[in-house]
Parts: sequence; C-alpha cells; structure tokens
Amino acid sequence: MIVTIRHAEPDDYDRVIHCVDAWWGGRQMASMLPRLFFTYFRPWTFVAVHDESIIGFLAGFQSQTNPLQVYCHFIGVDPGWRTQGVGEALYQRLFVEAKSRGCDEVLAVTAPANRGSIAFHARMGFAVLPGPCSEIQVPYIPDYDGPGENRVRFQKLLLDQPGRTQSRTD
Amino acid sequence: MIVTIRHAEPDDYDRVIHCVDAWWGGRQMASMLPRLFFTYFRPWTFVAVHDESIIGFLAGFQSQTNPLQVYCHFIGVDPGWRTQGVGEALYQRLFVEAKSRGCDEVLAVTAPANRGSIAFHARMGFAVLPGPCSEIQVPYIPDYDGPGENRVRFQKLLLDQPGRTQSRTD
Repeated sequence: MIVTIRHAEPDDYDRVIHCVDAWWGGRQMASMLPRLFFTYFRPWTFVAVHDESIIGFLAGFQSQTNPLQVYCHFIGVDPGWRTQGVGEALYQRLFVEAKSRGCDEVLAVTAPANRGSIAFHARMGFAVLPGPCSEIQVPYIPDYDGPGENRVRFQKLLLDQPGRTQSRTD
Repeated sequence: MIVTIRHAEPDDYDRVIHCVDAWWGGRQMASMLPRLFFTYFRPWTFVAVHDESIIGFLAGFQSQTNPLQVYCHFIGVDPGWRTQGVGEALYQRLFVEAKSRGCDEVLAVTAPANRGSIAFHARMGFAVLPGPCSEIQVPYIPDYDGPGENRVRFQKLLLDQPGRTQSRTD
C-alpha cells in the first residue's frame, strides 16, 4: 500500500469537492471549501494519493496577521481509508512545511459534535483552547463561525528549539 | 456624512456575520464567511463605519501561491447605504494596500446571477476573465466553487509603473 502526500494542484479541487459532503457523513461541507483554498494557498494544501485516487486532503494557510501561525481549515480522509495514518501523514506534512518556513504554531477548529475530529487532534498533539461553554467536557466557543456554529479551538506549538517550553502567554 | 474605512478587528466579525445573509438579499452566505478571514487576514480585511455602525466590509487576502496577487473573498454594503460609494471606498483601500505591498493584481469571483456585483466590479475597473459558458453575455465557469456553484471571475491589474500595459499572458 503506497500512499503519497503531495501539494494539491488546482485541478485536484474538482475531485475533492465532490467528496467532502460524503466524507463528512452527509453534512453540507462543500460551501465551506471554495476553490480559493486550492488556488491561492498551494504551499499549505496537500492531497494524499493512492493508485491515482485522492483519498485525503488538507487545506491550510499561513496567517497574514501573525506569520508565525499556520491554520488548518480542512482535513479530510476517505472513510474507507480511516485509521490507517493518512490524516496523520497529512498533518505531519503540514508541520514539516510550517517548521521549514519558520512558523511555530498550528491552529484549527472543529464542531463540538465532531468527536472523531476532537480525538484525532488530541492524537496529533493539539491542545484544546479554553472556551466559555463545554460539551462532554470539551470547551468550545458558541457562535464562533456565525449563529449556531459553535467551535472547539485547537492549538499545537511546534517545538524544535532546545529550552523552548510548551507554555506561552502571548 | 462621515464614513471611515479601517482594518477589521477580530470582534467586528460578530457584528458582520449577523448581517451578511440580509445584505445579500436573504441568500445563505454566512457559511462562506468563517471567522478565519477576520482572524488571519487582518492586513486585507476592512470595515466601513458610520456613527459606530458597520455599514460595509471587505474580506481579502494575499495569495500564498503567487504573492503578487490579492484576492477579494467578500465585499458587502448595507443595502441602506448602496450607491453612495462605500463599496468603492473599500475596494480603493484594498488597492492602496495591495500596491503598498508590491502586489499588482486583484482577483474576485461572483455568481453569474449577481448582476449588481458584476456591474459594480466593472465600475471598479475589473475585467471579466474568459469562461466556457455565459449568461446574458457574461462568461462564467460552471461548478467553479463546487457542484452548481457557477462563478464569474474578475481581474484587475494595478498599473502604476510607466510602460506597463494591461495585457498579460502569464
């Protein structure tokens, strides 16, 4: 089984966008993934490919408010390929890219109901940031992405430098 | 009547996101404007303010694939403030920011049915890029942002340098 992680090409969008709603269990996700993420953030957007099929993707970008931060907007894996390390390989590729460009922090959000995503981000070393509400002991921000769109926020610090610690107050 | 154009602050998102569906005539737009655009692209995101009320906003970013390009993801004006130059002031602010950072091209898309947006972009000096289909003589790309999400593409070159011409082949 050979799975390749590579930068997404603009044409990959047309293949991915037809999969996202199904990969998220029927949720309407496609409207949250306009083509711009594949067109304008190529350094931060990756696909996982097996036998010429796209079986996973990650769409991220570098913050232009704080260029030390990288944000993962979407990461998804074909349900038939779950639990085989594809999502981890995509995130590890993002972490390598982030470190190579001098970034030291990766951020992401998910819906509180998405327990699979919350568990996955914990395995990837993300901490859950504080929030005023909580659901099954996971803090979240109500209406973070608009009315009714609650979000759990994840943060992972990329620590390579000796002496650097996980705590940060800025 | 004093209208101020300023960079959006993160908290402005909570005010804007409650307006967007109404400002777009009831279309479901909020899901296309997650908070990330206000959090991570502050240099390219502006609000128009009158008497402490937000009456318009623009959410853009710099391409990380081609840093000479700037993309406008959302521009909206309170319907009660249309035809008074608020949208133009927002775009002019973006053009100034783009030039000051060495960018030379601004891109945007809209739905073919949004004739108001198409006319507005023409007034702002945008050209419509070619597309394989057309609606009322405006070319568009079918399924550009996913199934059924057709889009007209706009391009404006920012020309300051003497000798530079509008034609570009790259």
